[in-house]
Order: sequence, then structure tokens, then C-alpha cells
Amino acid sequence: MKFNIAVIPGDGVGPEVVEQAKKALDAVAEAYNHIFIYKEAQLGANAIDATGGPLPKETIEICKSADAILFGAVGDPKYDNDPSAKIRPEQGLLNLRRELDLYCNVRPVKAYDNLISNSPLKREVIKNSDFVIYRELTGGIYFGEKTLSEDKQTAHDVSSYTVKEISRVTHLAFQAAQKRKKKLTLVDKANVLETSRLWRKTVSEIAKEYKDVELEYLFVDNAAMKMILNPTHFDVILTENLFGDMISDVASSLCGSIGLLASSSIGAENGLFEPIHGSYSQAKGKDIANPLASILSAAMLLQYLGLHEEADAIERAVDKSLALGITTQDIKRKMQKSTTTSKVGDFVADY
Amino acid sequence: MKFNIAVIPGDGVGPEVVEQAKKALDAVAEAYNHIFIYKEAQLGANAIDATGGPLPKETIEICKSADAILFGAVGDPKYDNDPSAKIRPEQGLLNLRRELDLYCNVRPVKAYDNLISNSPLKREVIKNSDFVIYRELTGGIYFGEKTLSEDKQTAHDVSSYTVKEISRVTHLAFQAAQKRKKKLTLVDKANVLETSRLWRKTVSEIAKEYKDVELEYLFVDNAAMKMILNPTHFDVILTENLFGDMISDVASSLCGSIGLLASSSIGAENGLFEPIHGSYSQAKGKDIANPLASILSAAMLLQYLGLHEEADAIERAVDKSLALGITTQDIKRKMQKSTTTSKVGDFVADY
Ligand SMILES: CC(C)[C@H](C(=O)O)[C@@H](O)C(=O)O
Ligand SMILES: CC(C)[C@H](C(=O)O)[C@@H](O)C(=O)O
Repeated sequence: MKFNIAVIPGDGVGPEVVEQAKKALDAVAEAYNHIFIYKEAQLGANAIDATGGPLPKETIEICKSADAILFGAVGDPKYDNDPSAKIRPEQGLLNLRRELDLYCNVRPVKAYDNLISNSPLKREVIKNSDFVIYRELTGGIYFGEKTLSEDKQTAHDVSSYTVKEISRVTHLAFQAAQKRKKKLTLVDKANVLETSRLWRKTVSEIAKEYKDVELEYLFVDNAAMKMILNPTHFDVILTENLFGDMISDVASSLCGSIGLLASSSIGAENGLFEPIHGSYSQAKGKDIANPLASILSAAMLLQYLGLHEEADAIERAVDKSLALGITTQDIKRKMQKSTTTSKVGDFVADY
Repeated sequence: MKFNIAVIPGDGVGPEVVEQAKKALDAVAEAYNHIFIYKEAQLGANAIDATGGPLPKETIEICKSADAILFGAVGDPKYDNDPSAKIRPEQGLLNLRRELDLYCNVRPVKAYDNLISNSPLKREVIKNSDFVIYRELTGGIYFGEKTLSEDKQTAHDVSSYTVKEISRVTHLAFQAAQKRKKKLTLVDKANVLETSRLWRKTVSEIAKEYKDVELEYLFVDNAAMKMILNPTHFDVILTENLFGDMISDVASSLCGSIGLLASSSIGAENGLFEPIHGSYSQAKGKDIANPLASILSAAMLLQYLGLHEEADAIERAVDKSLALGITTQDIKRKMQKSTTTSKVGDFVADY
């Protein structure tokens, strides 16, 4: 079969890791007789440098006409410490999410037995953890009105949610729970926020359609704590945009495998797949970044396209590279030598 | 000397643990020849039951005329799952913070060597961690406008900050850093939020007055991650209200000593002292809740009143109870028997 894939390498180590993911896709194309047509697009700091803005129109067009999007990373430290900067790399990703209505961010978190020794948590705490976060991605305070008063003394950000926005991601989360351990935890701050109360109300009503799923509510501060003290407690976590940002970074720090975590951002018409690690600019160009998260996001992309066997093949190759210790330095075990980004990519593609 | 202390036992295990803190204060009064005049006040679910509202006027009066406030906990599960409830226990605490302008929440986090084995983190990760969180407590999305549209389809919460609100807590945080390891980390989401950009701008300007302190910026998602992967990285953390809520619960889960963490909420005219653990309703009335956090918050209260020697005496008694293993079940070590809330309180007071 033939697929159009938009490729957005982005900033920092994005290009290096996406390159390895493409190798894996090429290997799949050859073995299974598919044709992947890549169209490369700019976004982030690189797009600002090239075009003056973080999300060129052309990028939106390429993404809209593609069957799926392979994404690297966004962000450059040179923009971070300038609070007056009008143009920011991250705005490119945020606007793309909004333009394509990629409302559902899915982040699976799993303790790989092979990597548990890299976890900051004790083995007995993290062992067997296996949960997935459903984060609403196009609403909330990320996209509400932002104002700075004329005298520059007062700033505002508005968070807002509609029942409609809450409902669509909630259904996806319940459906995921049905296929897993049948437990859904809604994370909010309903003791303080009106938007959280609307979440609680909407989700508790939708729950009636999924009677086989157990629904639990946790305040975000409690949820973060519980995730660290007892991560095996969770199955599917559902939450709004800002809490999801935080909670999912807490989650990804737990397993000792940040370099392995991939995520998908799904909308009605499109899907974007990316490693959860950021642009990691200190490592840029050094051929040391772990490409496995990007390679696994390519596997997620294949799942999304319905190519399940092909996705499994990539996952098996990743497992093999872990088992053989053909990994970058971040996840190497004692007594092993680490290798480079590109060599890991070559191994996975060959396998 | 003579001091007026407002005592707000609150909900859940609040009354039980505050009782033990009062025993410790009484012992101090006797040993050092002080007079503490306690005035008890209601707040939270108990106040709703008694008066119809979570913060009776009388409570505000008692607090305003007191030299300091000893607080237990607030919250009752019967209000949590009713998104349409108009009256909530937490509103009492939030309004009290606002009424008394308690703008600076200070939460010290320290890995006690004796308790490290209770930490979910590996010893080598958490060992030597010792940082303090300065959380702005009277601004941000907690106190902004909240609306639910008439058709109940859209909810809003507004976050806002002024330079003035940011400045006063920032100065306190810098001053704390000067007395510690001279490092301050501002936690925000300046890549997305206008309020965060105002924080970054204001803090970076104030930093010029504290040239001996190193200033670092972290996005909240990164900060949460770093706190788990490398908690010894931090010295003083400064952040806004909502991020502080979350970040400080992440912090308190790390050391294996939640039952030991106390916090203070300081304003220009008053100070409130409380354990960081919540109302913990499942344990209510069972005499099993750990009173040490409440006892240590009484020590913080004494520090605030300028009674440093007296505060040290309480801290020494707590250390002793830990060393001897006279503790509740949550922090008992292998091979030890645990004891009750009130017996721990008795031991500390006697000592
Ligand atoms: C880059 C940034 C704007 C983004 C976010 O906050 O959503 C990132 O942290 C993420 O989680 O994808
Ligand atoms: C009870 C609740 C409203 C409160 C808060 O969110 O501030 C609590 O979590 C805290 O941290 O003191």
C-alpha cells in the first residue's frame, strides 16, 4: 500500500532521531511491500530561522494532505529566557495541534523489566507498572485568551472547556480502559476550578455508557503523589491539557526509560507521532540521543495506519536491541558499552 | 511571654493531630515559662455542618486577633464527588488565606536518614536532598474569576498575576536562598502562559538585587521530572499557586516522610502553620495518624514567634522519637512495633 507521511524533524535532536525512525519505516516498506512517500516540513526554531514564523503555511498543507505525521521535537534554549520574545518555537507545535484538531494525546508508560534498574524508583515500587495517559490537547489554558495589561503590571491566562471538548477525549479514554484493566482515573482540581467541575460532571455522566469500567477521581496534587508512591495503582488516566503536561512528565520519569517513550496525538482526520523527550539541545549533533522513542513512535504511526503486523515487527526489533544492549548511553546497563544514535537505528532497521 | 494562638483543628484527622501539637506547646509553655492562650475556631466541613458555611466570621476574627494560627486539615470526601455542590470545605481555607493575605507558603523537604528506607526512591537518588518550596498562595487561577455558562456547556477559570504579587514572595524566596545554598529555581510554563512570562520577567529583574544567588528557570513539566530524577539538584524553588500545589506534593512524596512534613503560610500580619498531609478521612478517629507533622508545624509556629530555643526543643524531641522508633505505623521500620497518635504526642511532650 501507499502512504503519504509528513515528516517534521524539528529542533535539537529531532532531526537525528527522526532519521532513525525513517530507516525503520524504510525497512518495513521493503519487507512488506509498501510505499511511504515522505514530505519534509519545518516547524519550531528552524522554521523561525528559515521563514520568520514557527509554523509555515506550507507545513500545515503538507500535514493536512498526509496520512500521518512523524514528528521530532521542538524548542531552543535561545528563546526560553526572553520573556518578551513575541515568537516562540513551541507556538508552532501548539498551533499545529489546534489547526489539525489533534485533541487526544496518548502516552503509554510501562516499566520494561530490562530497564527497571535505570528507574529512580525502587524495583518493588515500579515493577509491573503499566498505564496510559489520555491528555486533552487542544483546550484549556493553553489556548485561552492571554493578556498583558498596557502598563505591563498584570497578566491573564484564561482556561476554558466545553462539554463537547471534554466528551470526545473522554470516550476514547473509556474505550481504551475497556480494552485494558477497566479502570479510569480522572485527574482534576475540582475542589478549586470550575473547569474541573465541568470535567467531573461530564465524565461521570459518560461513565454510565461504560458500566464495565471503574471510574475514580483524583485531585492533581494527589494524583502526582500517588503516581510516585504507587504507580501500579493506575490503568487509564484522563485529564485536561495543563495537568496532562505535568502528570505525563512525572509518569515518564518513573520507569527509567524516558528515551523509550513515544506518544501519539490523534484528531478526527489526522495523527501525529513523536517521542516524549524534548529537543534536548545539549545533545544536538552529537549522535548520542536515544532514537528508540522516535522509532517506537513510528511503530505507533503504523498502528494508526492499520499496519499492525508491521508495527509489531518494529517493536520486536526494539526489544531485541534492548536485550542485546545495543543502546545509547542513557539506558546502557553496567558492564556494557553504549553505541551511537545512528548505529541503534541501523540495527533496528536491519533486524 | 504571653501569646494568643488560634487553633483550627478542621476536618478528618485534623483534630487528633492538632491535639498532639498542643501537648507539645503546653510542655514548652511549662518548661520555658510562657503562656499560650488558645482560641479554637471552626473551618471546613465541620464549619459547614455547624454554621452552614466553611469559614464563619468568628473564625476570621479569632485569627486576626491571634499572634499565630495552628491549623489541622480541611476536606471531606462527601463533598468531592458532587460537582454541583455550591459550598465546599476547601473554600474555607482558600478564603482564610485570602482574608489574612497569607501570600507565601513555605514547604521544606528533607530526606531524613532514618526514614530513607521508606522513600519510594532509591537511596542513592534521594540521599542528601534538602530543599524548600516557596509557593505564592493568594493569586493565580485559585482566585481568578470562575464562570459556568448559562447552558452549562462551557466553564472558565481565569489566572492572573500582578508584578506586586509576584515581587513580595520573590523577595522572601531570594532571602531564603541567601541563607541556604544560594540557588533559586523559578518554576513556570513561560513557553505557554502569559502569567508565567510576567513571573520570569519580574523575577529576573529582582535577581539583580541578589547577585550572590544563582537563578535558574525550569518549565513545570521539566521541574517535576527533575525533582524525581535528581532531587538533590534543588535548593530554593519559587513558583505560582497552582504549580506550587502540584510540585510540592511531588516533593513530599519523595522522602518517605509525608507524615513528617510541615508548612507555613506567611502574610504581612499573620502566619498559619499546618501539616502538609490532608484530612486523611479514612483514618479519622482511629488514633493512627502521624502527629509529627503537626507537632513540627507547632515548632515552625514557635520560630515565627521568635521562640527559637523552644522550637529547637520540639525538633529534638521529634528526632528522639524517630531514633527510638516511637512512631505511628506509616513510618515504622522493619522489626519495630508502631504506636498510636496520642502516645507519640505524649512522648514528644514528656521529652
Ligand atoms: C513544548 C510544549 C509546549 C509542550 C506542551 O506543554 O504541551 C510539551 O511540553 C509537551 O508536553 O508536548
Ligand atoms: C485543600 C486545597 C484547596 C489546598 C490547595 O490546593 O491549595 C491543598 O491541596 C494545599 O496544598 O494546601
